Amino acid sequence: MDRTRCAIFSTTLKASPVSPAASLLERYQQVRQTTDRLCSPLAPEDCVIQSMPDASPIRWHLAHTTWFFETFVLKPAIAGYEPFDPAFEYLFNSYYNQVGEQFPRSQRGLLSRPLMSDVHRYRQAIDQQMVELLAGLDSSSTELLSIVELGLQHEQQHQELMLTDVKHLFSCNPLWPVYESREPLSPRPAAAIDWLPGSEGVREIGYAGDGFHYDNEGPRHEALLQSHEIASRPVTNAEYLEFIDAGGYQRPELWLSLGWSVVQADRWNAPLYWQQVNGEWHQFTLAGLVPVDRNEPVCHVSYFEADAYARWAGCRLPSEAEWERMTIDQQVPITGNFVESGRYHPAPAPSIGEGSLQQAYGDVWEWTSSPYTPYPGYAPPPGAIGEYNGKFMCNQYVLRGGSCATSQSHIRPTYRNFFPPEARWQFTGIRLAR
Amino acid sequence: MDRTRCAIFSTTLKASPVSPAASLLERYQQVRQTTDRLCSPLAPEDCVIQSMPDASPIRWHLAHTTWFFETFVLKPAIAGYEPFDPAFEYLFNSYYNQVGEQFPRSQRGLLSRPLMSDVHRYRQAIDQQMVELLAGLDSSSTELLSIVELGLQHEQQHQELMLTDVKHLFSCNPLWPVYESREPLSPRPAAAIDWLPGSEGVREIGYAGDGFHYDNEGPRHEALLQSHEIASRPVTNAEYLEFIDAGGYQRPELWLSLGWSVVQADRWNAPLYWQQVNGEWHQFTLAGLVPVDRNEPVCHVSYFEADAYARWAGCRLPSEAEWERMTIDQQVPITGNFVESGRYHPAPAPSIGEGSLQQAYGDVWEWTSSPYTPYPGYAPPPGAIGEYNGKFMCNQYVLRGGSCATSQSHIRPTYRNFFPPEARWQFTGIRLAR
Amino acid sequence: MDRTRCAIFSTTLKASPVSPAASLLERYQQVRQTTDRLCSPLAPEDCVIQSMPDASPIRWHLAHTTWFFETFVLKPAIAGYEPFDPAFEYLFNSYYNQVGEQFPRSQRGLLSRPLMSDVHRYRQAIDQQMVELLAGLDSSSTELLSIVELGLQHEQQHQELMLTDVKHLFSCNPLWPVYESREPLSPRPAAAIDWLPGSEGVREIGYAGDGFHYDNEGPRHEALLQSHEIASRPVTNAEYLEFIDAGGYQRPELWLSLGWSVVQADRWNAPLYWQQVNGEWHQFTLAGLVPVDRNEPVCHVSYFEADAYARWAGCRLPSEAEWERMTIDQQVPITGNFVESGRYHPAPAPSIGEGSLQQAYGDVWEWTSSPYTPYPGYAPPPGAIGEYNGKFMCNQYVLRGGSCATSQSHIRPTYRNFFPPEARWQFTGIRLAR
Amino acid sequence: MDRTRCAIFSTTLKASPVSPAASLLERYQQVRQTTDRLCSPLAPEDCVIQSMPDASPIRWHLAHTTWFFETFVLKPAIAGYEPFDPAFEYLFNSYYNQVGEQFPRSQRGLLSRPLMSDVHRYRQAIDQQMVELLAGLDSSSTELLSIVELGLQHEQQHQELMLTDVKHLFSCNPLWPVYESREPLSPRPAAAIDWLPGSEGVREIGYAGDGFHYDNEGPRHEALLQSHEIASRPVTNAEYLEFIDAGGYQRPELWLSLGWSVVQADRWNAPLYWQQVNGEWHQFTLAGLVPVDRNEPVCHVSYFEADAYARWAGCRLPSEAEWERMTIDQQVPITGNFVESGRYHPAPAPSIGEGSLQQAYGDVWEWTSSPYTPYPGYAPPPGAIGEYNGKFMCNQYVLRGGSCATSQSHIRPTYRNFFPPEARWQFTGIRLAR
Repeated sequence: MDRTRCAIFSTTLKASPVSPAASLLERYQQVRQTTDRLCSPLAPEDCVIQSMPDASPIRWHLAHTTWFFETFVLKPAIAGYEPFDPAFEYLFNSYYNQVGEQFPRSQRGLLSRPLMSDVHRYRQAIDQQMVELLAGLDSSSTELLSIVELGLQHEQQHQELMLTDVKHLFSCNPLWPVYESREPLSPRPAAAIDWLPGSEGVREIGYAGDGFHYDNEGPRHEALLQSHEIASRPVTNAEYLEFIDAGGYQRPELWLSLGWSVVQADRWNAPLYWQQVNGEWHQFTLAGLVPVDRNEPVCHVSYFEADAYARWAGCRLPSEAEWERMTIDQQVPITGNFVESGRYHPAPAPSIGEGSLQQAYGDVWEWTSSPYTPYPGYAPPPGAIGEYNGKFMCNQYVLRGGSCATSQSHIRPTYRNFFPPEARWQFTGIRLAR
Repeated sequence: MDRTRCAIFSTTLKASPVSPAASLLERYQQVRQTTDRLCSPLAPEDCVIQSMPDASPIRWHLAHTTWFFETFVLKPAIAGYEPFDPAFEYLFNSYYNQVGEQFPRSQRGLLSRPLMSDVHRYRQAIDQQMVELLAGLDSSSTELLSIVELGLQHEQQHQELMLTDVKHLFSCNPLWPVYESREPLSPRPAAAIDWLPGSEGVREIGYAGDGFHYDNEGPRHEALLQSHEIASRPVTNAEYLEFIDAGGYQRPELWLSLGWSVVQADRWNAPLYWQQVNGEWHQFTLAGLVPVDRNEPVCHVSYFEADAYARWAGCRLPSEAEWERMTIDQQVPITGNFVESGRYHPAPAPSIGEGSLQQAYGDVWEWTSSPYTPYPGYAPPPGAIGEYNGKFMCNQYVLRGGSCATSQSHIRPTYRNFFPPEARWQFTGIRLAR
Repeated sequence: MDRTRCAIFSTTLKASPVSPAASLLERYQQVRQTTDRLCSPLAPEDCVIQSMPDASPIRWHLAHTTWFFETFVLKPAIAGYEPFDPAFEYLFNSYYNQVGEQFPRSQRGLLSRPLMSDVHRYRQAIDQQMVELLAGLDSSSTELLSIVELGLQHEQQHQELMLTDVKHLFSCNPLWPVYESREPLSPRPAAAIDWLPGSEGVREIGYAGDGFHYDNEGPRHEALLQSHEIASRPVTNAEYLEFIDAGGYQRPELWLSLGWSVVQADRWNAPLYWQQVNGEWHQFTLAGLVPVDRNEPVCHVSYFEADAYARWAGCRLPSEAEWERMTIDQQVPITGNFVESGRYHPAPAPSIGEGSLQQAYGDVWEWTSSPYTPYPGYAPPPGAIGEYNGKFMCNQYVLRGGSCATSQSHIRPTYRNFFPPEARWQFTGIRLAR
Repeated sequence: MDRTRCAIFSTTLKASPVSPAASLLERYQQVRQTTDRLCSPLAPEDCVIQSMPDASPIRWHLAHTTWFFETFVLKPAIAGYEPFDPAFEYLFNSYYNQVGEQFPRSQRGLLSRPLMSDVHRYRQAIDQQMVELLAGLDSSSTELLSIVELGLQHEQQHQELMLTDVKHLFSCNPLWPVYESREPLSPRPAAAIDWLPGSEGVREIGYAGDGFHYDNEGPRHEALLQSHEIASRPVTNAEYLEFIDAGGYQRPELWLSLGWSVVQADRWNAPLYWQQVNGEWHQFTLAGLVPVDRNEPVCHVSYFEADAYARWAGCRLPSEAEWERMTIDQQVPITGNFVESGRYHPAPAPSIGEGSLQQAYGDVWEWTSSPYTPYPGYAPPPGAIGEYNGKFMCNQYVLRGGSCATSQSHIRPTYRNFFPPEARWQFTGIRLAR
């Protein structure tokens, strides 16, 4: 399944003054350049390999995001539009059945062509046409502007996947390639967890307003919250090591039955990318193989591990409604360790005053206890672009808050990310509730 | 994974006058004899084959249910208890990690021994000891009586599985063996669907009271219901045939993404057990291969099919809270087409007055839109017998109401059955909501 | 692939006085009764399970051998013949494409019906017709008599498979069922190996004469033998244990590359059916789990193991031509430990005078170094019954001499058995050459 | 399994005047430059993908062949040798267990690093050291010269694999990349087949002489040839199309049993790389997708297809002894369509006088009926470099004569290539015998 969902944003945007054409043009250029910058440490060889079925080659991300603008913006907007290459329609369609057949996802790694140079030419050609188009639009072209905004959000999602997919690729290589080296942070001990009381009773959640959001964030609706508390920060590596040392991976009673099967079949004994070197735990990062920093949030754990850890700790995971209300009630600012930091790795919690929710945004996506289901009254938008969020609403769990690989401008309190419970290659961590 | 959950019932039962030892003894004998009766049409050859990983050999059901009483009742209750056969502890443990190692589920079909005659001797020996034990108890032995009641409920679940597993086994055989032949019903056209308005707002669901119930039915708690309507009867074969004829199995936009993968991989084009004979749809039943009766509830559909059908019909599936409140608000009696009818197949809806919920109990388990998750405040009971419902709460959906293979005394408004979304070999059907 | 080959015997038999109808009738009854006797220790439950794809349920062997007589003798010989059950033609056809479709081999274990009692009725019905037919024939009906003889040889092959398939089935059961208990032999130390010089130069091999033989044993032809010696007896368990203790299963340089892959993938560390109990090697036999007798020929080894052992011992395996010429030049009598002994297990070598070839027949099939290929000028006979030996002539190796599960009347110096190099569930052992 | 065998050549070479150090240096440079030339049409992206388990990335071939010289020449020859990169010893060891652990063959496609530029630096560094070493040697260093010659032969084998592996990679890409375009040949109808009588009786085969040869080509020994004839040229596409049109792929009686399983499982209906475009057969070549030329030898057929075709044609395949004697008796010159032609595709037979063997060398490897087994008296040489030919002598068939991707200087009458019967991605064709 394709992990990236390309959903339409609310039609309320149509009447919005937020994204006039001029500022969207600027934003278009900024987002597209960010993609290029993320590619800059990579050689052509790094860009064509598919290291596992869940991942895609970098070249595919570059072309697919470009295909999106060509297919959903240029083609409808320009009469008699000539496609850059008719074969790309088939090669770089991810899963839009209504657009046509798709090259099989599992075989994306069999394509050495088009070459990276071809794909860069493709991007430049589409960018040129897009810039011309956007320059000629005014804010009345609301529908087209909406699709452009959607394309940019879509590309930001793929930027995150580029980082996680390259990390997985490099992790398979005993040479431990470095994507980008980084300065070590000065040691910063994690504060003790505060338990923050959540609001209780019938509360509203879901997107409200005029800005961009994915269809799956609405409709806004009432949810019923039980009495609960949420931890002030995510679980750290030090805390997770206690779970490992307590035999967490050897005790079936801590695990969901499906999770226990995976633990045994895949011989999990630590988070993904962890390994012991001379008796000391190390983890592979985009800056190479480094010792585990005990103060960082634990990362690259599956839902199964998050759930087992919470059970072992006598707690549970928060529901997505609890998570969302807490961030809104606390008016948590959308700041933190995002992709813009260039760190590409979670950082220890900053020392903030007691009683506040820390690291809700950035660092690690936080598994919630909520299966990914439609909100009451949800209906996917019609047409190809509405393939979508809805069709993935099965056997997945909601994650909240973004990670160190997410763009700051991409995340919202109502943002619903989702992955199957066994997925570990995203920057995923744990926040407890009780 | 083992589909049968063996859960502890509420400790509130401890103070209950409902099941004094005397009546429990009678009930013990009745349930155990029912198991024997369900075996009576079967030859030894029918009882040792495992036709797919999800199913178990009949011999295994017979021994495992007996092992339950031996392990959880006789062994703790009788000082110096001598096990019937020490090897059985390993062979017939399903998934109780706290009891010890288990013979691999997928290899249950490799065992020709113990023979059926041995297993019958095993059952008789345990029955004799159980009867003696129960005869000597009074109602003050609440804990032991609780476990016995649990064992009986557990055995009733396995009775249902025996029927579904034999049906699957026989369906693999081109001789189309008949388990038990039955009289055809006189034709009975299905009434049109009435749309029954559900209650709205904060309502309580979950088990309340002193009777037996599984741990996953509680705690009783508040749920928030949106405005909705529920169909008065399940979807019929005639209605489902319209979906098939409208190309339902060829249109990806109707399906969840995972479901569409299964449709293509397994080449689904109709419910399980359906096949065309000379251009006419037939279905394999426990009475052999028969033409599809257009008025019966459609059966042996997966969650994926139920969901796709509902989408095609412009509706949705009910949530489990909606289903439960409707049956309670309507005071639907627990009557209908259960295993006691000896039909072993869903029947057309009886003609009941307008505005009432029909066939909520019996006939077919009804898929709800609710992923199987713990109720707020749920915690599994301690000890082996609490392995249980909780550890299966992942990637499954809740079904409600029982089927034509369920015992009437086994089902409740709050009863939560659950299966993965691709499962089809249970008697599962569709009720619409909107 | 079906290991049993049903080949036509030489047309030279047509003019033969060897098998007049009267004696064939007697032989028919004897062979068929032997099959029944081999079934007598088995319960119906033992007869329907397929424990691995290479094995078949006993019920299948019983019905298939009967189907052979019905299809290839009764149907052509009796005008207007009414089949016992038309479905059996499909169910019990092994691989005769020219007779029609076949029920998939890998699904033979999904059939609980027809019941054993039905199959016994089937056998009795066919036997009655066969006896009547044979009683009415005289020796001039050479073609029909030939097919009957072929059917009997075919049934003897299946008798051997019944024993090996039951052994495999029982070996999967932690109860270690006993097929038939047997008296232990008095200890009999194995004599030292003599090296017997083989004949050299151009020599004839292959069947010559008027008796029954399979098509793959001819045509008789010249083969070129190099200078060589053959061991006087098979390798014993004691000798094979030295190989194990010398790390034979851990040293890739001893193994064919394909063999080494299997060793690692399947974690082979000893012959099939061997396991350690309290630090002592045991082996599962048809008489249960017993300590390994050091003096017996090693058994249940694959070609890969035979080849690796020979390499480790500084020897090689004999070619089939070397094996055949040696038994003929030495005029080795066809006596030994066959199925008739009721031992169903190899026995230590008897003490025979020096310089003679011991245990060439019976005890264990001996792997040769010869890939199974057609003899020069070989052509399979036309028609369904010629499916055949020829189509299996790929990726298999020739074995010679029969085993403790072979009928004495079934084996010949020219008899070519064959299995893939990884097969271990037959009674297969090792004789060295150099 | 690794298709490339790296075998030691005869120790008789030690006393040979054939390859003095000076000419070997020249040859070293020529072979290494050929490898570079074969890479020149490829981009880095083309060089890191593994399109199937049997194939390797081009980058791997480049590094592995270089590793061979480093490991088996430089390291033993230079005291205190510093490896270019210690990690390469693990990464680019193919299957030499005695040298150490190997990076798993099936994961060669997961490595984006070392980059192609790194590997070119690696090659240059080793080349420089090799040139210095060779320049300082005289002909008395026979052992070292032998290893160098072996390394060059080894590299020539990998050159052929580079072409076949790139062809497979490109064939997976719907863009049909062109490796190198080529001029179409003028139409040249194939001559009728002459049947050339082979020599009969005891004849010698196997390598004799002082030149380089692989260990598996010896010892020279006597073989017994039956009376036979061999076709004057390989089977053409036109002839193979008759087989297809006659339903060859739908008739089980024409196939080996294993072959028929593959035909059905993989839905073979034509040679590899064939597909229909608008009702006309095309084949993918290194010059792109082109219509099938009826006069070319059929190519990319498995042993199973060669065998089935021969059976359908009422013929058989030649044995390797028959093939070898025919080329020697006829004194067939080693000329033809080799990799040097730059065509990389088989060509129609040239018109040669009647009665002569055509296209024995070059164009297509010719499947023989001979399983790949050791010659009498064969023993692999000791040490790592003797891993070897011997360990692959199981479940493979011998091919003779080289192909359009083989170097002319690499092939000999006694050369034994080998592949499993299902392999199709080499340039493999059919010559008939009878």
